[in-house]
Amino acid sequence: MNPVPHPTRLIALDWGTSSLRAYRLGANGQRLELRALPWGVMQLPEVGAEANAGFEAAFEQACGDWLQAAPATPVIAAGMVGSRQGWCEVPYLNVPIAVDQIGGSLHTLRNRHGQIIHIVPGLIENSPLPNVIRGEETQVVGVLALNAQRNNTVADHQRPENTLIGLPGTHSKWVQIHHSAMHSEVSHFDTFMTGEVFAALCGHTILGRGMEAAGSNADDAQRAFERGLNVAQTPAGRVGVLSTIFSTRTLGLTGVLDGAGQREYLSGLLIGHEIAALKNMLQEQDRLPERVMLVGETALCERYTRALYVYGFKNIDVVQQATERGLWQLALSAGLLNKAE
Amino acid sequence: MNPVPHPTRLIALDWGTSSLRAYRLGANGQRLELRALPWGVMQLPEVGAEANAGFEAAFEQACGDWLQAAPATPVIAAGMVGSRQGWCEVPYLNVPIAVDQIGGSLHTLRNRHGQIIHIVPGLIENSPLPNVIRGEETQVVGVLALNAQRNNTVADHQRPENTLIGLPGTHSKWVQIHHSAMHSEVSHFDTFMTGEVFAALCGHTILGRGMEAAGSNADDAQRAFERGLNVAQTPAGRVGVLSTIFSTRTLGLTGVLDGAGQREYLSGLLIGHEIAALKNMLQEQDRLPERVMLVGETALCERYTRALYVYGFKNIDVVQQATERGLWQLALSAGLLNKAE
Repeated sequence: MNPVPHPTRLIALDWGTSSLRAYRLGANGQRLELRALPWGVMQLPEVGAEANAGFEAAFEQACGDWLQAAPATPVIAAGMVGSRQGWCEVPYLNVPIAVDQIGGSLHTLRNRHGQIIHIVPGLIENSPLPNVIRGEETQVVGVLALNAQRNNTVADHQRPENTLIGLPGTHSKWVQIHHSAMHSEVSHFDTFMTGEVFAALCGHTILGRGMEAAGSNADDAQRAFERGLNVAQTPAGRVGVLSTIFSTRTLGLTGVLDGAGQREYLSGLLIGHEIAALKNMLQEQDRLPERVMLVGETALCERYTRALYVYGFKNIDVVQQATERGLWQLALSAGLLNKAE
Repeated sequence: MNPVPHPTRLIALDWGTSSLRAYRLGANGQRLELRALPWGVMQLPEVGAEANAGFEAAFEQACGDWLQAAPATPVIAAGMVGSRQGWCEVPYLNVPIAVDQIGGSLHTLRNRHGQIIHIVPGLIENSPLPNVIRGEETQVVGVLALNAQRNNTVADHQRPENTLIGLPGTHSKWVQIHHSAMHSEVSHFDTFMTGEVFAALCGHTILGRGMEAAGSNADDAQRAFERGLNVAQTPAGRVGVLSTIFSTRTLGLTGVLDGAGQREYLSGLLIGHEIAALKNMLQEQDRLPERVMLVGETALCERYTRALYVYGFKNIDVVQQATERGLWQLALSAGLLNKAE
């Protein structure tokens, strides 16, 4: 057999609640192939009663042929696959934690064919209101690796002390990174359920009823979103989000917003409350970041970028491919890639 | 025919979104009879395509026989029956407004038999985030009437300047009453969607999933509720409700709260955020009330009473029968009861 032109160096799985993405990565983590499968941890293929049969089947569909072609390739997986509902529960690591310690704490699991899968642990912050992430720690590692690569030429005195990494989605996570001469550390993180609350309010409360009416044009929608964004910093906004959301309805009743406008307004209002609260907290902690990096779906990152500017944040970048880069980086620091050619 | 021992003086309808309550009231507003029907404005009897046929049929079921027995009896109705989705849209009155002006602004509607029905208008506050009530204005009138009756002996210097009336429910309304020598005025009101948000979070987000586990005993449930109540006044609580609600899940994950405990905790957490925000706003407006009066379902009023005490409010009373008393009072000040024997 001729040698493959792009040999597989790592199989990297991003295995969440509702989807499974499998990356075949080559030299330097270059993406050779990507498969998106619907087999999230909560919706596995139905293949008999055997324990973990669904995980086994999904795994084989995702990368069985890749492993057959290159049997020695290491496999790494991050996300809800390591949760209590996952293939194998992997305990959380405690925050604060140095970012480069995460790669040294991977868990191993053997599938029914003896294949080893390295699973990335999530992080927990055991504060009075505990907080957890699982999957986002990998994106954080990826963001920092991509950034280190890009900033190799930055002089020491220009290096930031605090970076804030935002991961908007169903739940948005805001991860504070504190940089020192020694290392970068995850010092604190917060969860906001903004995306899921938005969906629940639109789908299952009276606020959704007014949204059925005819749509705005793009300019009106944009204005409605901006109007919502600003509410949290007005005097009326200080009464809090449980109250301000009702204005979605009353601005409809009074003819100010049409149906689509109400939807955009509510989106802006919730994101604005999130960013206002975040900023307030960072100010109180004296941890306002020198830069903000966002990872997530493009349209959502645009919404958050606008919100961050409205609330006075600066140096905001949207980072692509953080997950695959994070999985590569973790495999590297775990020593999984040493033996590869 | 012999004279009826308790002649009907007023037929009073509390006609909301999901139910219709009909009161037959006698001398001094004494309740002679009550009918609770499922015919809310959004779920009327299905009786053919004629405009308003559902309203007509519901009305006849509610009080047709009462009117037949006493044809001259005035009829008054409050609630969503006067909304855009109601029998007849009645414009809102603007706040601030003197409480005794409301009775002078009833709308009249004639049903298909020529019977006049007097409809109470709702209130609107046209602030940057407009606010509306419809039905609660009647309860406010009732609370103040009941209170005036009870406090007839209170010396002038003991009379409060500010009363706060709380109407917890799917949406809770907080109505500020400012008393002067001349009159009592609705000066401002707020809406919190706490009840509906709680239901949407329990029923349609990940927070509900953890609540399916086995239940607490009553003491544990009470402790979980109190734990939630306090969150908004802790340092961690200042990051706001979009973030703190996630602790419902993490306190489950970390084994602190069982399923029923998570539900109680979330209830307390939301109500706590509501009351904390309310207090904050009242302090900024310099309108902290001398007393608070609550109207609503008994168990819910108990929850709010505990929350109000936790956040330092004093002189809290729960008021019964505010709706029927309000309808009576409005009929009285509208002059509808003058001609009755």
